[in-house]
Amino acid sequence: MSIQGKNYIGYSLSAQDGDSFQSYIPAQNTFLPEKFHSATSLEVESAMQLAQTAFETFAQRSAHDRADFLVAITEEILALGDELLERAQLETGLPLGRLQGERGRTINQLLHFAEVVREGSWVAASIDTADPGRAPVPKPDLRKMMVPIGPIVVFGSSNFPYAFSVAGVDTAPALAAGNPVIVKAHPAHPGVSDLTAQAIVKAAQRTQMPEGVFSMLFDNGHEVGTALVKHPVMKAVGFTGSYRGGMALYKMAMEREEPIPVFAEMGSVNPVIILPETMQRKGLELAKNLAGSITLGAGQFCTNPGLILAVESPALEQFLEKLLYEIAQIPPATMLSEGICQNYHKLRDEALKQEGVEVLYKYESDGSGEEKNQSLAAIARVEGQAFLNNPALQEEVFGPFSLLIVCKDLTELEAALQKLKGQLTTSLMADADEAARHPGLLRQMASLAGRFIMNGVPTGVEVNASMHHGGPFPSTTDSRFTSVGRHAILRFVRPLSFQDWDDALLPDELKNNNPRGVWRLVNNEWTRDSI
Amino acid sequence: MSIQGKNYIGYSLSAQDGDSFQSYIPAQNTFLPEKFHSATSLEVESAMQLAQTAFETFAQRSAHDRADFLVAITEEILALGDELLERAQLETGLPLGRLQGERGRTINQLLHFAEVVREGSWVAASIDTADPGRAPVPKPDLRKMMVPIGPIVVFGSSNFPYAFSVAGVDTAPALAAGNPVIVKAHPAHPGVSDLTAQAIVKAAQRTQMPEGVFSMLFDNGHEVGTALVKHPVMKAVGFTGSYRGGMALYKMAMEREEPIPVFAEMGSVNPVIILPETMQRKGLELAKNLAGSITLGAGQFCTNPGLILAVESPALEQFLEKLLYEIAQIPPATMLSEGICQNYHKLRDEALKQEGVEVLYKYESDGSGEEKNQSLAAIARVEGQAFLNNPALQEEVFGPFSLLIVCKDLTELEAALQKLKGQLTTSLMADADEAARHPGLLRQMASLAGRFIMNGVPTGVEVNASMHHGGPFPSTTDSRFTSVGRHAILRFVRPLSFQDWDDALLPDELKNNNPRGVWRLVNNEWTRDSI
Repeated sequence: MSIQGKNYIGYSLSAQDGDSFQSYIPAQNTFLPEKFHSATSLEVESAMQLAQTAFETFAQRSAHDRADFLVAITEEILALGDELLERAQLETGLPLGRLQGERGRTINQLLHFAEVVREGSWVAASIDTADPGRAPVPKPDLRKMMVPIGPIVVFGSSNFPYAFSVAGVDTAPALAAGNPVIVKAHPAHPGVSDLTAQAIVKAAQRTQMPEGVFSMLFDNGHEVGTALVKHPVMKAVGFTGSYRGGMALYKMAMEREEPIPVFAEMGSVNPVIILPETMQRKGLELAKNLAGSITLGAGQFCTNPGLILAVESPALEQFLEKLLYEIAQIPPATMLSEGICQNYHKLRDEALKQEGVEVLYKYESDGSGEEKNQSLAAIARVEGQAFLNNPALQEEVFGPFSLLIVCKDLTELEAALQKLKGQLTTSLMADADEAARHPGLLRQMASLAGRFIMNGVPTGVEVNASMHHGGPFPSTTDSRFTSVGRHAILRFVRPLSFQDWDDALLPDELKNNNPRGVWRLVNNEWTRDSI
Repeated sequence: MSIQGKNYIGYSLSAQDGDSFQSYIPAQNTFLPEKFHSATSLEVESAMQLAQTAFETFAQRSAHDRADFLVAITEEILALGDELLERAQLETGLPLGRLQGERGRTINQLLHFAEVVREGSWVAASIDTADPGRAPVPKPDLRKMMVPIGPIVVFGSSNFPYAFSVAGVDTAPALAAGNPVIVKAHPAHPGVSDLTAQAIVKAAQRTQMPEGVFSMLFDNGHEVGTALVKHPVMKAVGFTGSYRGGMALYKMAMEREEPIPVFAEMGSVNPVIILPETMQRKGLELAKNLAGSITLGAGQFCTNPGLILAVESPALEQFLEKLLYEIAQIPPATMLSEGICQNYHKLRDEALKQEGVEVLYKYESDGSGEEKNQSLAAIARVEGQAFLNNPALQEEVFGPFSLLIVCKDLTELEAALQKLKGQLTTSLMADADEAARHPGLLRQMASLAGRFIMNGVPTGVEVNASMHHGGPFPSTTDSRFTSVGRHAILRFVRPLSFQDWDDALLPDELKNNNPRGVWRLVNNEWTRDSI
């Protein structure tokens, strides 16, 4: 396979006359030769029309057909072999091991949804049987299940070239549910996107999916994304990226004649709270774990621990000393793009200049210019009161940066927490005894985030039914839905009730004899039995 | 009990210095003496502060405590006795039988949610157990359940003074989930609202709920509602009413610094499709049923069948004749308010004036002026092609009006369906054999609505787990959530994941031994067992 540089519109390649751009290699500060053609408005329209037509038949395909399609995607992705890894290394600057892991995770996500769809219970079937003799009016037979909604636009993220991109956490569940997908490729890894799109198209053709079930468009500006979100055929938007980007899409979607849901995961500082006894007991161990979490992937994770809150004590000073020591052992790493790198250092330096902020560690360039696009970690501290006075200190600094908030006591710590906006995660470092003595703090932390971790770092996101990767605004635009794990499919469906239907006409999941053997809520009891 | 005319702010009555208004009696075109004081901005603020404080403790109260509160509300509502019915008769013009039924339904809704909360499985608990030996990284223990989100503002609707008002479909699940509620009373039935608020406050005090768990504010303009929706403490909005009203709230909520969900049910013409053989076989029976459904409650239901689509045939003409005959037997009824009545006749007359629309029946006033606020039913017909050409013909006419779309053939009928916007319901009159021969039509109807009824009229909405009362935009602002039935509670909660928590600290629903015996998805299997 080779990179095509054209837009994937159904089963055709198209490069009408759009602008083109090239892959940037952040580690080398150079460009790769291939040209990627931005989609024209006609190409957007073609992709949309195909998606709309494909929806009618795709939504009717059996669950097994859709599962086969997802499995075929994983096979085609793996068949790309080292080319996919090497291209990603060039385009993202991420190390090979990480990319191998992320590719594995992406495959697992697709297989997870293949399994979810094959098993079938995700449709959340419920049945309330009729009672024709009920007075004063007979009770009808009602059955409900989730159904797909139509074409979904997916914006690839910059920081996960596989797992949150072309075949990632939005595409997998959207396709699994029966919705066509149009991906707007992230311009920071167009080659990876191109190869991945080829894999999906091949899989779609091989499993005889309708043309238009998948399209992918290039653009290194905002026009294509805007056109996709505003298009009347589009039914939902998946996005992972910055607050500014997410909110721009959100506003656009809300101002449509028919508003559509936007699932934008936008940012989080993932506060980590260390209680005093735990600081005393195992501060040094925590320091080592946190240093790893802060610098993991050059800090380019939405779950990066950007704020650490603790109470002043000698143990805290030892913790800090250890944290700085550990951070200093970790070399700078190449960041995803020039823009992300510049933005990181700009936001980091702005944070470091705030009143009361003391710089504890800042990787200093030796001036040789070698550090192009390198993440230069920093750790800073601030007193609780100064943090309370300055809302700017809770802004996300996307990269290997963390701010330690040193509070006089737990009351001040709770006051600082009270100031925080919505988060993806929050972590409490405390054994059960110590945690149990602070129920108010636990409640406050719970109200803040979508995932509440005990004695663990926030980086690392499991893919299963119990994962909630999402959180109160502004960490996402919709705290009710997760972008990771089985329930991510619920973003791209809606419930439909069937009243008094003849059994033969009902979808299989709702038929009396439950031919698919799915879990159903029948008269308020979960069962896989027939009725 | 007597009507107080003041704002219910926690456990206090307050009438600072706001404007006041009186109850209008539509059947008599007069006003009742009591004055209702619109809330001031200070009163709004007091209610919000109480709600925010109440949330912290209310959300922690046991499920049984919350269920007891809901049951106490039903007792206090019933204790209001005939006064509540008589006041509603005056304020809404609805007949006693309907009001008794609606009060019963409201009681049942509250009891339903008391039962849902007591049983506990609504929290949708899921557990994925740890695997410390997993390579390359250990698998954490993850558990997830729904948690309440905070204060909810509920807008009472005009057309259901009990069931979609102060203690109705929004308030019951919001309280059940653990959220404080602030109701903006509908100015068309302030006395009913006042009495109902008294019942809720009494129930809250009797069951020792925190002050602020419920407040209710009056206003016959838009200021109070606007202030509530814009208040930063507010976390979601429930509304049933007009498209204009719903969209105004929606836009307001989206433009907040922190956007919040708005569940607005706004309107629907509930298309009814009669297939040719069924028209032939039982058109006369359908005509009688539809006449009843069209005029039920003076046509003032969101599920009123406003469009009937059928194919031209002699049987259709007989159906029509019968429909007109039946409609003519049904006397006009008092509408809910002067505004609704005027608006009905204005929209009805606009529809009747459209090109190609033939008036088949229109109740004519005798000029004596007796018909003040009376619903004067109308039935009209239009050819399929004229309907296709004129989007105005699918606008909702809230009242006893229905437009029959006479299509040349099923192809034209499907084309007409294609033009329709999102609906709460759609109904197909066809036996299983005839329906099975039109899979494309079934798919199209399914994509249009939230509830798809076979051989039944759309009026009548069951309260259970399989009901979806909602639908694609513009019938609601969020097609993913129902306002009726068990799952209505999902509008006012969000998922929260607990990672690696000590069992003793977890909420009961997530503890290993499942002390509440709730249904849980444990490693992807539904079970009530402990783990």
